[in-house]
Amino acid sequence: MRGISRRDFLTVVGAAGGAGAMFATMGALGLAPTAMGTADYRPPQPSDFRLTGRAAAKVVVLGGGIAGLASAYELGKAGYDCTVLEARDVAGGRNFTVRGGTRQTELDGQTQVGRFSDGEYMNAGPARIAQWMVTLDYCRELGIPIEVFTNTNASALIYHEGMGAPVRYRTAKADVYGYVSELLAKATDQGALDSSLTGDDKQRLLAFLEDWGDIGAQHRYTGSKRRGYAVDPGAFDQAGTPLPGPPSLSDVLARGVGRHFSFEFEYEQAMLMFQPVGGMDRIPAALVRAIGPGRVRTGCAVTGITNGDNGVSVTYTRGGREQRIDADYCIAAMPPHIAARIPHNLGADVRQALTTFDVHPVGKMGLEYRSRWWETDHRIYGGITETDLDLDHLWYPSHGYHGRRGTLIGYYNTDAHAVAYGQLTPAQREARAVAQGVRIHGDKYRTELASSFSVAWHRIPHIEGGWALPTTDNIPAYVLLNQPQGRVYFAGDWLTFLVTWQAGAFDSARRVVTELHSRVLKS
Amino acid sequence: MRGISRRDFLTVVGAAGGAGAMFATMGALGLAPTAMGTADYRPPQPSDFRLTGRAAAKVVVLGGGIAGLASAYELGKAGYDCTVLEARDVAGGRNFTVRGGTRQTELDGQTQVGRFSDGEYMNAGPARIAQWMVTLDYCRELGIPIEVFTNTNASALIYHEGMGAPVRYRTAKADVYGYVSELLAKATDQGALDSSLTGDDKQRLLAFLEDWGDIGAQHRYTGSKRRGYAVDPGAFDQAGTPLPGPPSLSDVLARGVGRHFSFEFEYEQAMLMFQPVGGMDRIPAALVRAIGPGRVRTGCAVTGITNGDNGVSVTYTRGGREQRIDADYCIAAMPPHIAARIPHNLGADVRQALTTFDVHPVGKMGLEYRSRWWETDHRIYGGITETDLDLDHLWYPSHGYHGRRGTLIGYYNTDAHAVAYGQLTPAQREARAVAQGVRIHGDKYRTELASSFSVAWHRIPHIEGGWALPTTDNIPAYVLLNQPQGRVYFAGDWLTFLVTWQAGAFDSARRVVTELHSRVLKS
Repeated sequence: MRGISRRDFLTVVGAAGGAGAMFATMGALGLAPTAMGTADYRPPQPSDFRLTGRAAAKVVVLGGGIAGLASAYELGKAGYDCTVLEARDVAGGRNFTVRGGTRQTELDGQTQVGRFSDGEYMNAGPARIAQWMVTLDYCRELGIPIEVFTNTNASALIYHEGMGAPVRYRTAKADVYGYVSELLAKATDQGALDSSLTGDDKQRLLAFLEDWGDIGAQHRYTGSKRRGYAVDPGAFDQAGTPLPGPPSLSDVLARGVGRHFSFEFEYEQAMLMFQPVGGMDRIPAALVRAIGPGRVRTGCAVTGITNGDNGVSVTYTRGGREQRIDADYCIAAMPPHIAARIPHNLGADVRQALTTFDVHPVGKMGLEYRSRWWETDHRIYGGITETDLDLDHLWYPSHGYHGRRGTLIGYYNTDAHAVAYGQLTPAQREARAVAQGVRIHGDKYRTELASSFSVAWHRIPHIEGGWALPTTDNIPAYVLLNQPQGRVYFAGDWLTFLVTWQAGAFDSARRVVTELHSRVLKS
Repeated sequence: MRGISRRDFLTVVGAAGGAGAMFATMGALGLAPTAMGTADYRPPQPSDFRLTGRAAAKVVVLGGGIAGLASAYELGKAGYDCTVLEARDVAGGRNFTVRGGTRQTELDGQTQVGRFSDGEYMNAGPARIAQWMVTLDYCRELGIPIEVFTNTNASALIYHEGMGAPVRYRTAKADVYGYVSELLAKATDQGALDSSLTGDDKQRLLAFLEDWGDIGAQHRYTGSKRRGYAVDPGAFDQAGTPLPGPPSLSDVLARGVGRHFSFEFEYEQAMLMFQPVGGMDRIPAALVRAIGPGRVRTGCAVTGITNGDNGVSVTYTRGGREQRIDADYCIAAMPPHIAARIPHNLGADVRQALTTFDVHPVGKMGLEYRSRWWETDHRIYGGITETDLDLDHLWYPSHGYHGRRGTLIGYYNTDAHAVAYGQLTPAQREARAVAQGVRIHGDKYRTELASSFSVAWHRIPHIEGGWALPTTDNIPAYVLLNQPQGRVYFAGDWLTFLVTWQAGAFDSARRVVTELHSRVLKS
């Protein structure tokens, strides 16, 4: 979801909002970009075969994550005979919701069993869906109810080392925007921007700043009702007791709280955002149902892919026994670094290309509490508290408001922080996360805790990473793997401009399905 | 809710976050402010009477809006014998949810009957609850499930006359914040703010602006991915097709889109906000149930209040017949301009004081559609579109996502705009609102419409106004009516610093209940 490396990739490859380096690179490789957007997608249909005399083919899909399931689901609409082989004991891939009874063994053999109460869960992988993302179309099509995911909350907190007490977003924002307004109004008043601003511009800018920064006509920021109150406004003479402050301009800048503000402007992160009611795994569960009984086989680890002139042959183990499946086509919807280890005859270029993605460690922990103290004590109903602690982000739940219990995301971290937590035992991870949380929220963070579950994605068998990013160096690999290799197609968020997002997996699946179906119709 | 007059009141009376003029005024009147905040509220309890030998009294409550119902509910906790007289045929007051079958006759006799489908509704009065408001405590206490109210949405629109096409919030914000950053960075770079900023300050400010305005290290705003896309990023080579733009700095300032940004910073309006699942009237319905059978009498219009040494006598009509109720105390929880018309013996000062509040016309219309085209065609899942048309605000529903039908708030307007719509017939109001909406959303705004319902609060019998505001001129009246007049207490949002908010009604009720109970215990 979030990571500077991904932004770097998008910035460099899709410079200035899109066209840039990627198209140039592809032009140099002799590939013209297709113009298909999500809006243009047309699922394969049985009637497509009516005039051609062709028939739907047999397809083996390797990997039952979202890209694999969506591929089988879409092809199934036209009657393709699809089989999905999933190595783990549950479909969904990183779309993984932990509940009471969920069992997860890490690479080193340590096993956790979820002890969450009924109705409590954590979305260990994807957890939020932007309004524009195709993921929502699948929720609608599959009849999965959705609700708001609370990605931003004015009442949530910012906590940096050395800050003493955390500060609410609303307070931090009022102060930063207030001082920004004061400074820009001052510069404008003084004529410092006369070369950039007409007289009308200046008048309009000042009117905007007075309102937006709550600095009034005197152009000085001296605090604002927007900061919040120590005692809220109420009846009769309760005008509201202001919070202490504001701090000085220098202090506000030194605290660096403003660096958290741009998150909410990101195209992928801006509210409103959504989640399926009941857990993100409602999506793979619905896809598996729609694909049909017996077609999604779990516990099947692929051991070999052989591409031939007339078909593809895939070997896999199930329950310790080697098995084989033959098909007309294959969609390899596994993480690239996992696919890279599987013997195949697709050539050295493909083998090499699969190793070029930048795989990141990612960790997440769910903390179930016996009470919803963040609501009752702190009036925080959802949202995210940002920190510079190694827990990175702390999420409050977007469902179950006013319920008896609730589950926080106690950490959601990447790279060095994810590695640090991942190498601990689950009990040690909990202790570390709770010790950090206590600094922000006090003792209840420890005393009200009921149970926890942690997922270190880089330590989960058959996944081994939070996400695999294209880089500025592997554009030829990205382009190569986005083309069919004989009868084998690759699919996954790692082959899209929505890398790290479930929507990328869906979009990749749609693209592969479109190309495969077109080929079948012409074959 | 919203209204410039209310802000004026708070600004002047509660200057600089609270204390200011109001306390000064009250000091001059010899009244010291009490220190009770909402957090300190303690409901009356049966055990309170154990040591005093006193007993719970009989209380008649005039008005079954939220202030009246909450008063009876809280007093009932200690066994007070409460009767609520409500003039309308439904309790809740302005907390009024219109569904299929809801019937409403206006002052001039014109009647509407709701034709909304099952599950569709409009909250004609209060519709949103901030996290800090006591209203949420009542939802928790009464077991009313809540969900996010979508008060802000980056994908919602801003539409001004002469704009041509509407612009999304995300796009407008990216442009305004981008140019603000560029201008302030330029002034900072040029040394124009050296008298206000240390070297460290400058460095920190520039780092903030680069990120926050997405202007990068070159300090020029040339657009941003935050603006959104014509074609979204997707698979393989779909880097995303940028929207045209950005407009020039002068054009952005001239459009005036930035004036809508500060709404989301307001203490009462900042997300996250909430609503009861199923309609705001879940609250009065739950209060009525908790108060107990027979205690809330609808269709009872009060005709007289007589305060005596040992009790209060209230006359009212029910079904055309005059009736009388005697009680130890009375809580008059009616709008002040309605109470002002009822004969009473509380004196000329009270009579006069009740007429000093500033009563505002307010209108709201629900538009039910046969499809949720705002979701499917425009990817707008909730939120508010702001306009300078006479519809003022256009709300998308915060529930029923992906359902078959949905209900917009087609206008939510005040003062002159509310008067203009209010004087039309319901059919004319619909035609006018739809014609305006078509300018923003095109023909589906008309062709998909199923039915509408409009509420002109200033034309609703026994309410006759959207809200009644204290003003800078009526502080003595506000203070007077916040004191018991003999055995009569006044209650309502109009007697609080949360005027126009349901939370104000609750807070006023709590205050009156606390005072009345304390008096009974001492009597």
